[in-house]
Amino acid sequence: MNEQWLNQIKWNSDGLVAAIAQEAGTGRVLMMAWMNRQALSETAAGGKAVYWSRSRQRLWRKGEASGHEQRVKEIQLDCDGDAVLLVVEQLGGIACHTGRHSCFFRRLDKNGWVETEPVLKDASIIYKDKS
Amino acid sequence: MNEQWLNQIKWNSDGLVAAIAQEAGTGRVLMMAWMNRQALSETAAGGKAVYWSRSRQRLWRKGEASGHEQRVKEIQLDCDGDAVLLVVEQLGGIACHTGRHSCFFRRLDKNGWVETEPVLKDASIIYKDKS
Repeated sequence: MNEQWLNQIKWNSDGLVAAIAQEAGTGRVLMMAWMNRQALSETAAGGKAVYWSRSRQRLWRKGEASGHEQRVKEIQLDCDGDAVLLVVEQLGGIACHTGRHSCFFRRLDKNGWVETEPVLKDASIIYKDKS
Repeated sequence: MNEQWLNQIKWNSDGLVAAIAQEAGTGRVLMMAWMNRQALSETAAGGKAVYWSRSRQRLWRKGEASGHEQRVKEIQLDCDGDAVLLVVEQLGGIACHTGRHSCFFRRLDKNGWVETEPVLKDASIIYKDKS
């Protein structure tokens, strides 16, 4: 497969595209992150989600530290070409570095943000073996 | 309700936060856009999605031209505070300006991007009455 399809992405001024991960089956939106060209290319080729870490300024192979890889079932592109949607199988059932299923674990109610998802595994345990 | 909760958002250097709209019921991710403080405040107060149009540099009250408003059932915030997820009821069943249900109407296959969703209503008809 040639990489012509990568040229249809509208990379932002930092060379990144927004990437949303949605869980296959449950439909739960797990996280939003960013990808550069290499991250998206590797994701498509290898079938595992690879992001670009803006804080660390390097490729972030999701699960490299936690083991919580995302197996990518499908990659979708939006009308503007500036966001991709990954339909994924979430290994360990934990996408968030806080140990929760989804990163979207706060919901707005009349008093502000309230937590709606339990910590399934403590972060100190998740990252212990791989640190 | 005071607006203390807005201070927990990590606005980017342009004063924006990423906003993902997901359809209630179907779980379909409809679109990704951006919000500034006023857009998110109005969305929470009025129950209809208001975004910030980066191309037009003004508030974009979703549906103002198309009639395809989004009634917001829930607003979620991610762990980093830099992305919100709106669970919405999509009026007209069309979120995309191209007349499709979702903006994510392209899927990557071995030959590149392929369209996976039909145009439900031609854009020239959608925008005719309101232009």
